[in-house]
Amino acid sequence: MQALWLESGELHYKDDVDLPTYQPDEALIRVLLAGICATDLQLIKGYYPFTGVLGHEFVGEVIQAPLKPEWIGRRVVGEINIGCGDCVQCLALRATHCENRQVLGIKKYHGAFAEYLSLPLDNLFCVPDNVPNEQAVFTEPLAAALEIQNQYHVKPTDTVLVIGAGRLGQLIAQTLALTGCHLQVVARYPKQQKLLKTQGIHWILETEIQSQHYDLIVEATGSDSGFKAAVHAVRPQGTIILKSTYKGDAKVNLSEIVVNEIQILGSRCGAFTPVLNLLAQQKLHPEILIDAQYSLAHGLSAFETAQDHQIMKVLLTP
Amino acid sequence: MQALWLESGELHYKDDVDLPTYQPDEALIRVLLAGICATDLQLIKGYYPFTGVLGHEFVGEVIQAPLKPEWIGRRVVGEINIGCGDCVQCLALRATHCENRQVLGIKKYHGAFAEYLSLPLDNLFCVPDNVPNEQAVFTEPLAAALEIQNQYHVKPTDTVLVIGAGRLGQLIAQTLALTGCHLQVVARYPKQQKLLKTQGIHWILETEIQSQHYDLIVEATGSDSGFKAAVHAVRPQGTIILKSTYKGDAKVNLSEIVVNEIQILGSRCGAFTPVLNLLAQQKLHPEILIDAQYSLAHGLSAFETAQDHQIMKVLLTP
Repeated sequence: MQALWLESGELHYKDDVDLPTYQPDEALIRVLLAGICATDLQLIKGYYPFTGVLGHEFVGEVIQAPLKPEWIGRRVVGEINIGCGDCVQCLALRATHCENRQVLGIKKYHGAFAEYLSLPLDNLFCVPDNVPNEQAVFTEPLAAALEIQNQYHVKPTDTVLVIGAGRLGQLIAQTLALTGCHLQVVARYPKQQKLLKTQGIHWILETEIQSQHYDLIVEATGSDSGFKAAVHAVRPQGTIILKSTYKGDAKVNLSEIVVNEIQILGSRCGAFTPVLNLLAQQKLHPEILIDAQYSLAHGLSAFETAQDHQIMKVLLTP
Repeated sequence: MQALWLESGELHYKDDVDLPTYQPDEALIRVLLAGICATDLQLIKGYYPFTGVLGHEFVGEVIQAPLKPEWIGRRVVGEINIGCGDCVQCLALRATHCENRQVLGIKKYHGAFAEYLSLPLDNLFCVPDNVPNEQAVFTEPLAAALEIQNQYHVKPTDTVLVIGAGRLGQLIAQTLALTGCHLQVVARYPKQQKLLKTQGIHWILETEIQSQHYDLIVEATGSDSGFKAAVHAVRPQGTIILKSTYKGDAKVNLSEIVVNEIQILGSRCGAFTPVLNLLAQQKLHPEILIDAQYSLAHGLSAFETAQDHQIMKVLLTP
């Protein structure tokens, strides 16, 4: 089959990759649409030494499901973490933190930038009929965005600042807007600003951030630049949620965290079901981020396009 | 009066310092006993440019209280933060984070290493009769230790690690032990180890810390060395409470915080009343940390003694 293959930090288009193997309790899935995310761009920069088919944002159709043939033909999205089921973390119901976990297109498991992928049936979620592929393909990053509200009680009266208005920052802004909170988003580029304005979300420049003012800050710049701004902006006893992963260390004045009694929360993946509910109710519109679609054969051009700061979401259609 | 005076990062003994002035709603207090803490040692190293009488841990007797003369003769301890009452933080009932706050012996307010100090009556708490001065003088640092349980629900079934067994680490261990949790304390020096053993608290060496194991870590080393160890030791989705303040930045891998969804809480001052309750009930024994007492006239020697890692608490008796 065709696939985008990462090896030694270099991405290749291949048309002779083997079909994924699958166990009886797994499904073979035909990929309908896949999305390029910042983690993919980090992976080709060497953030994590992965070899195999890249890609973890997808919507697909079940083709084979030996144990539960009733799944065949269903349109699905999939949780990307595959736990071992046996370790301390899995037994404590923290499978996304499994010590031996495989992660679709990220860690020891072939991903979604291909014609087919396989996943355990337990990882799959049916997409409601009224949710088009162009929305469903955003389920995984939207779940990561909504995880914020799983970890922290965002009150309607909270004053909230999102730093970074890229792919993830935009989705976070959409999910936070559902709380009714007083929301501002730091957006650097005209394209980002326009997208936010379209949705009635207030954007500001970094120079307009108020000092020690916000109850909650979400740092989603994807680089180390956002953290200093977050510490500057959060009120005493306020909370900073970290969403950015990148290579290398940041210099942090931890004493400031102590003196101002700031709470910092690392935040990664989230649950799919609430996102599919919200999409079915037409409460989220991630599809406005789509800038381009490429075939797998033009996948390398797709990645070039996705590097541009003015480009939001690039999709791949196998 | 006699006092220990900090100026340009140098500590002086003086016998001609003016008596503190006080407003009608303030009290003049005769200091009975005062304690040297790590913050005092940091202040003389230039952590914060304070000029005036040093010291914030004390127990004293009210000598004058124009607005409420019934306070005269009472034995008291005092909250060290003095809020302005007018700023956003004060109006939000976060007076300890007042933007214009004065702090006893730390910021724009003369402290406790003197014969007398003054404080607003609102800052004072009566010491129960059965609590000796040698315990009451620990109220402020014990409140800082107990603040952990105000910020985070320490469950009896939690596995907890305290990194650092100095002055504050010992008090934190005492307060955490009250929860019944599975508690380990990293203690480097024989003196620290012995003190913990006396109380039936399990100490370990840094080499014995288990990786990704503990529900809660309290970092109380007083230096940047503890943070890396804390991130290494905390389980996924676990919590690190930061107690150390020191000069300069630490290098932190923030991506690790995101991927493991770790919670970090900065923790500073706490409430006095619960500590006085626990002391009255004989549930805490901070006095076992006392190593030496000096008169104010020998205050400089007291500070030299307090610098020694094997020395826990040094008291000053005006």
